[in-house]
Amino acid sequence: MRYCFGVDIGGTTVKMGLFEEDGNILDKWEIVTDTSEEGKNIIPNISASLEKKIEEHKLDKAEIIGVGVGVPAPVTSDGVVNGTANLGWGYKEVRKELEELTGLKAAIGNDANVAALGEMWKGGGAGERNMIMVTLGTGVGGGVIIDGKILVGENGAGGEIGHLCVNYEETDRCGCGNRGCLEQYASATGIVRLAKQKLGQEMRPTKLNKEDVTAKDVFDAVKAGDEVAKEIAVVFGRYLGYGLANLAAVADPSVFVIGGGVSKAGEVLIPYIKEPYMERAFFADKNVKFVLAELGNDAGICGAARLVMDA
Amino acid sequence: MRYCFGVDIGGTTVKMGLFEEDGNILDKWEIVTDTSEEGKNIIPNISASLEKKIEEHKLDKAEIIGVGVGVPAPVTSDGVVNGTANLGWGYKEVRKELEELTGLKAAIGNDANVAALGEMWKGGGAGERNMIMVTLGTGVGGGVIIDGKILVGENGAGGEIGHLCVNYEETDRCGCGNRGCLEQYASATGIVRLAKQKLGQEMRPTKLNKEDVTAKDVFDAVKAGDEVAKEIAVVFGRYLGYGLANLAAVADPSVFVIGGGVSKAGEVLIPYIKEPYMERAFFADKNVKFVLAELGNDAGICGAARLVMDA
Repeated sequence: MRYCFGVDIGGTTVKMGLFEEDGNILDKWEIVTDTSEEGKNIIPNISASLEKKIEEHKLDKAEIIGVGVGVPAPVTSDGVVNGTANLGWGYKEVRKELEELTGLKAAIGNDANVAALGEMWKGGGAGERNMIMVTLGTGVGGGVIIDGKILVGENGAGGEIGHLCVNYEETDRCGCGNRGCLEQYASATGIVRLAKQKLGQEMRPTKLNKEDVTAKDVFDAVKAGDEVAKEIAVVFGRYLGYGLANLAAVADPSVFVIGGGVSKAGEVLIPYIKEPYMERAFFADKNVKFVLAELGNDAGICGAARLVMDA
Repeated sequence: MRYCFGVDIGGTTVKMGLFEEDGNILDKWEIVTDTSEEGKNIIPNISASLEKKIEEHKLDKAEIIGVGVGVPAPVTSDGVVNGTANLGWGYKEVRKELEELTGLKAAIGNDANVAALGEMWKGGGAGERNMIMVTLGTGVGGGVIIDGKILVGENGAGGEIGHLCVNYEETDRCGCGNRGCLEQYASATGIVRLAKQKLGQEMRPTKLNKEDVTAKDVFDAVKAGDEVAKEIAVVFGRYLGYGLANLAAVADPSVFVIGGGVSKAGEVLIPYIKEPYMERAFFADKNVKFVLAELGNDAGICGAARLVMDA
């Protein structure tokens, strides 16, 4: 049996896992992300934590395939990061640094892309080769998998699907500076924005409270039959479905995997997304499946492990 | 020296080329596309023509790497076509059939994708690994190259960028049945449509004749300083630039190669496309280059030859 580490670096914690080659998770733990001093301790801390686990599990380094890492930033195919929003890093040769510290092979990817790879290996996209994962969290992230490989792109910015423009008439700005990005409608924040717009001009009774509404509230109310909430879900689903139709025209996937916090609403989401998708999709792309992500917070460590196994 | 054939099947002619491994074209010829009887003679005719050339050039089959073919239809990664608009084919195992007839290795791809590969090998995208080619002809075709490989997709429908929706407010229908496809604005046909709309409500003097206007007329008039033509080019470029910005968010290319009949207008096109692109592109995608295609009608045979060399 050979082993592999998967590491998912976030702004507050680093999630880590020890895997057997077949995907079985032997151990799972977290360390704090030390973003002080431009994040210079993050990789040394990861390395030290791995060394401790190697000792604890009495592993021989020769049995270890390597360390895969997901990073919350674009990552080039050489494992280089050119700046991060949350870790303090500027230009950083992550792969090189980690390989030198651990003596293990390393492979680095963008966290959303790596999570997509995880879902393809062991989750909602298992058995597929052409998959798009959409992560509906605070923002909208994504990962495009083509013939089993992450679409990395020239600058490591492949699969930035939160910033597809889905509404050329939008007047509000997205955090990225553009107007009409998918993220403005389909993220948890975007759903709250849509809800507040709707509730501000709504006279009908509704379970939703316009002062204090969350994406979860909206879908809970949808499940309870609230008409106002359903209309918010229709707008959310229309922009997401239209965006996915454009994605399909480029990437021609067999499956869309819907993940992130918003996806905890469950199967109720799917028809709201699928119907506008079918209305707009190119005919060759209409047979695509829509499924929910299955790995939750483990998608990142799983995909990271897979990434280094494929490297 | 080893050799390779590149074949580009069109609705009226099949273009063919004999290549040296380094890309040098030794011979180039055409045969008629016999679409009678559901196109059953097309592959046998190609095979017979190749055999004649092998004899004529006194080649040994052992020196021949194979035959690459571009087909005007989606082609799966196994070289299977599920129907064509122009050739008469329904389901057809093109690779298998051609390999059995010729005894040579074959590789089959969609014609627009294959042309993109040609431009990356020997044309406007030479030296790049992440490239998107946009072919502005009667329709809008495209090819997305990721890390040196064609993005084929699950159904062979990857890179169908003519059917990206770039205008959700459009009321006219595209040939595909949807509304607002890039093809409705950026193809030669689409430019004529935009020109007729504009000229129908235009009082200013212009060189353009609304009864009989072509895409070439529009860009000739742009070059001659015609203000009305320039405004048509602005609309063309806006939809194309917006579409390419969405493409870049997915695929993160280093270069866009603009080809097809419309691209014969030359460098005058680029600023019309680039300015709206820059307005909409995700920040990580702003350094992309815009170049014109260089191979013209040879892109297909070149890319087909490359396809089988990479197979």
